[in-house]
Amino acid sequence: MTLILALDFGGTKLAAALVNSGDREWLSYERRLSPANANASTDLDIMRALIDSLLQGEKPDAIGVSFGGPVDADTGTVRLSHHVAGWENIPLKELLEDEFSVPVTVDNDANVAALGEYSFGAGEGNHSLFYITISTGVGGGWILNGKPWRGVGGMAGEIGHIVVDPAGPVCLCGKRGCVERLASGPYMAKNVREFLENKPQRGKILRGLVGNNLDLITGMVVSDAAAQGDELAQDVLFKGAWALGVGIGNVANLINPQLFILGGSVIKAGDNWWDVVRKVSRETALPEVDFKVVPAALGDDAPLWGAVALAESVL
Amino acid sequence: MTLILALDFGGTKLAAALVNSGDREWLSYERRLSPANANASTDLDIMRALIDSLLQGEKPDAIGVSFGGPVDADTGTVRLSHHVAGWENIPLKELLEDEFSVPVTVDNDANVAALGEYSFGAGEGNHSLFYITISTGVGGGWILNGKPWRGVGGMAGEIGHIVVDPAGPVCLCGKRGCVERLASGPYMAKNVREFLENKPQRGKILRGLVGNNLDLITGMVVSDAAAQGDELAQDVLFKGAWALGVGIGNVANLINPQLFILGGSVIKAGDNWWDVVRKVSRETALPEVDFKVVPAALGDDAPLWGAVALAESVL
Repeated sequence: MTLILALDFGGTKLAAALVNSGDREWLSYERRLSPANANASTDLDIMRALIDSLLQGEKPDAIGVSFGGPVDADTGTVRLSHHVAGWENIPLKELLEDEFSVPVTVDNDANVAALGEYSFGAGEGNHSLFYITISTGVGGGWILNGKPWRGVGGMAGEIGHIVVDPAGPVCLCGKRGCVERLASGPYMAKNVREFLENKPQRGKILRGLVGNNLDLITGMVVSDAAAQGDELAQDVLFKGAWALGVGIGNVANLINPQLFILGGSVIKAGDNWWDVVRKVSRETALPEVDFKVVPAALGDDAPLWGAVALAESVL
Repeated sequence: MTLILALDFGGTKLAAALVNSGDREWLSYERRLSPANANASTDLDIMRALIDSLLQGEKPDAIGVSFGGPVDADTGTVRLSHHVAGWENIPLKELLEDEFSVPVTVDNDANVAALGEYSFGAGEGNHSLFYITISTGVGGGWILNGKPWRGVGGMAGEIGHIVVDPAGPVCLCGKRGCVERLASGPYMAKNVREFLENKPQRGKILRGLVGNNLDLITGMVVSDAAAQGDELAQDVLFKGAWALGVGIGNVANLINPQLFILGGSVIKAGDNWWDVVRKVSRETALPEVDFKVVPAALGDDAPLWGAVALAESVL
């Protein structure tokens, strides 16, 4: 029996799980929210506590790690976290190998989630796929010929920051009309909020859902309002789905993978959202370029299952 | 001594060359224009004549073939040519293997040119690169981890048909604001021509270069006029370089290759064109995404040298 320990350092939560290699069910699983003022050291302490509680003195044969931020996958060194302080240049692989004396593999969450969906989820049997998460941000991870493709500097997969509308609103990254600027939950909420501030007569349903407190509008509220028939919410959601669809179509033309797997909270926005994503991506790709767009199957566990696959790859 | 025969079925010309494997100079080289009413059968007859003249009864050890159109590289079957009739489903590899009894490898010209530049040109030592040709059309070929990446259906590399300006003019492919629609030579000429037809007072230098016969405007004329200070020509050329720059920056964010190699006639448009391509691609890519943009080194011979590398790969 080969025992795998899978770790997920998310931006806001920490999770760990144990599985026998080859199994599809966790032996045990634990999860904690990161505290509000978390830093690398508190995150590591919480993770150590989770691990101790899972292992109960047992020793795993390998450890796979998903990290929510840029990672040098060759050395297993974290570059930084955009959410938690103090992660700059932490040699996470080395640190865990010293502590547990077993092989450790570390990669960033988009790549690991892609590997999880490929190995155990919606991507099984499709050797070339692009996994996209549409949530607080928009990011992606590649599987090409059955292996993660990270790019020369480990930066591949940034579909969130490809430009689809050069006349669009300005993104935090400095450019106009990135996919993330139009399609992510918080940015859709911002687009709605700014519109409502200037047009007091619009968005009756939206206003109703948040008791007229526009600060409470989230991506989820936008899709709820759209589902209830709010036209402004529908417009903003449509534009987000359009942006993602153009991005997917462009990627299909460039790389021609078999499959796009979409994960993250925004994919719960409803059938209309999915219809627009599928229609626009199909129209954007050349007619000869074939692909499918499907929902992720593993939900929040995709990074953990990907960490299992990572760990298995070095056994 | 291993003798390689390299063949290039272009849209408007046919070329063949012989080289000793490992050498960087052709033993012999021949080229013909395709006749105006060429079809697959006349192209094949011309190519046979070139081959006979090169081989003089000798037998090559392997044959590599670049074809100007979509090819199923696994089977070596041509799907079609957009320029020459009758190429639908021609089993080119099988045909040549029957005729010469040596291994034959066939792929489309963008992929083969990418392999040529990687093996013998501007890409040497860069194991992940994207070759882009900007000429009558805009197309591209991938090298990832030292190997051609063709995509699942052989359609990867279509940077010409990614959308960079959804409010832009309509392309032959049906979409608005594709890279090819803005950056290719004939489309830049068309953009200038249409503008001049409506604004008789604009484009003095442009009009001068073609004796006021707007039908004579080509991509080359546009870049000549731009170099001589024609503002309209400069605007159109700038927009083409901008579109290509956005495309390159988007590709860098998605795949993170080391190098972009640009070939084709439009790269002769001058330093300003290169400056805009480099500046816009740099601005479009995320700051952490590193890459270089360099001119192709092999010129028109890139497909033939790539065909050599293809042939060597099966020896």
